[in-house]
Amino acid sequence: MSATEPFDLAAWTVRRIDEVDLALDQWLPVGAPEPLGEAMQYSVTGGGKRLRPLLAIAACEAVNRQPFESLSPMVREAALRAGCAIEFIHAYSLVHDDMPCMDNDVLRRGKPTVHVQFGEAQALLAGDALQAQAFDCLLSGDADIPASWRLGWVKRLAVAAGALGMAGGQAIDLASVGHTLDQPALERMHALKTGALLRAAVAMGGLCGAIQAAQEAALTVYGQKVGLAFQVVDDVLDVTVDTATLGKTAGKDAADNKPTFVALMGLAAAKTYANELIRDAIAALQDADLGDADALRALAHHVVARTH
Amino acid sequence: MSATEPFDLAAWTVRRIDEVDLALDQWLPVGAPEPLGEAMQYSVTGGGKRLRPLLAIAACEAVNRQPFESLSPMVREAALRAGCAIEFIHAYSLVHDDMPCMDNDVLRRGKPTVHVQFGEAQALLAGDALQAQAFDCLLSGDADIPASWRLGWVKRLAVAAGALGMAGGQAIDLASVGHTLDQPALERMHALKTGALLRAAVAMGGLCGAIQAAQEAALTVYGQKVGLAFQVVDDVLDVTVDTATLGKTAGKDAADNKPTFVALMGLAAAKTYANELIRDAIAALQDADLGDADALRALAHHVVARTH
Repeated sequence: MSATEPFDLAAWTVRRIDEVDLALDQWLPVGAPEPLGEAMQYSVTGGGKRLRPLLAIAACEAVNRQPFESLSPMVREAALRAGCAIEFIHAYSLVHDDMPCMDNDVLRRGKPTVHVQFGEAQALLAGDALQAQAFDCLLSGDADIPASWRLGWVKRLAVAAGALGMAGGQAIDLASVGHTLDQPALERMHALKTGALLRAAVAMGGLCGAIQAAQEAALTVYGQKVGLAFQVVDDVLDVTVDTATLGKTAGKDAADNKPTFVALMGLAAAKTYANELIRDAIAALQDADLGDADALRALAHHVVARTH
Repeated sequence: MSATEPFDLAAWTVRRIDEVDLALDQWLPVGAPEPLGEAMQYSVTGGGKRLRPLLAIAACEAVNRQPFESLSPMVREAALRAGCAIEFIHAYSLVHDDMPCMDNDVLRRGKPTVHVQFGEAQALLAGDALQAQAFDCLLSGDADIPASWRLGWVKRLAVAAGALGMAGGQAIDLASVGHTLDQPALERMHALKTGALLRAAVAMGGLCGAIQAAQEAALTVYGQKVGLAFQVVDDVLDVTVDTATLGKTAGKDAADNKPTFVALMGLAAAKTYANELIRDAIAALQDADLGDADALRALAHHVVARTH
């Protein structure tokens, strides 16, 4: 973009999201037994903002100093594989999180949740199979994708999804219902529960190129700040937006007596805090020699401006 | 072994199983939130025959033409990582399979199942985190492990665990309760449900060395036959052995009206069929230039001779 023209995130997204959606659909397993295959597709292709794949693509563009269209087919596929693998993990986590033994939610993106639609057992298996599919996705496709990228992706994704990442954050979340958490404890929980995958999206996208140490450090800080802001905003939306707009049951955290940033610091302070985090995320990008960070900056702003 | 001395599987196993158990314990995540970490350890370290890690080690020995003790520390660690990753997947599958929405079993290896001990939600997360840990295990440790081995492991494990492997087999199993399956359909279900991981164990162990195409083909047939025999014997044991010996609830398949080889062909014919499969598995090994396949042969015999 030129310095005089504001970056258009909507146009940027439109030129990428169809490729993401197509790849997610194409990279599901072909010939899976039914209804497992249908349940997997239902959970992955039912809309979704695709924030994680878009973050991976934006990080790839920044490190390579080129927009997606100008990158080689191999690098484009690599960024898509990194992003889609994270989206598969995200999708599986929603399926399992909605189950009766967890959040027991019946609505997701305005549709019946997977266990409501396909039964609990198939939902459990669909989530399990989607996790495996995420790793399969990282190891498939273009043979020219460097082994070092693939190895880096698998390691980061495994850590981000596991007991020291997303699953660990969910375990803390479960154990904390009805308890008072102070801000550091709440931030630690979310750094794992939601933050780990968002950080992985940025880091794995950044691996799709000759990334420098300073760039990697900047992307790490960016991912941390954006990830935390995302959760603060989620807590804000839970109390300010109705179920129809949210696409999932609103007011659920308060009803479940879950610790939230809104409960901890109040609504106004939570909004302010989210904006501060985004400011810090963008500041981190300035310090590194990242070629074109417009999309990363715009995505950060979008995380606090979103309404669902 | 010399030609005049019979191979001693018990002695072979004793010299390997402590290393497997130690590695499984050491390669669990350190510092996981509780009770998630405890639930993961409970499910992994609660005994178990370790058939999959032992198959991986045996395949590694055969391809390298050396017993485990004589292999380099790097190759030993590689075989252990391949085997332990499969065991993590196996452990997670048991945790999820025992849950109320699946088999609803309360006893496993003579102990309360994970959801009985830790609650359903933590059991769900423990299974999820163990799957991630399996892939982490393949990407950690000795930096000298060749990237090509790691990439081959991840691809094979992801396929074996996913919708075209174990999870797919479980989906078929769920959908087939109360239905009549013919023998090809029953074998297809088990080739995925149980067979996929057993085949992966042999294949991934075989990758820990300079494997030749003929060796890989022989190990594939061996894995297929042993995997199927394993399930036929499981069905036999379900009706011939009591709960205390089995370490899980006996007679459950019949009570749940599940299709089994015993129901399909009768007890005597099922036993005969298992022995034929093992004979075929061992015959496949003869055709390939595998250095020392004694352990693979003995493990195959053990699969039909086991009592639990």
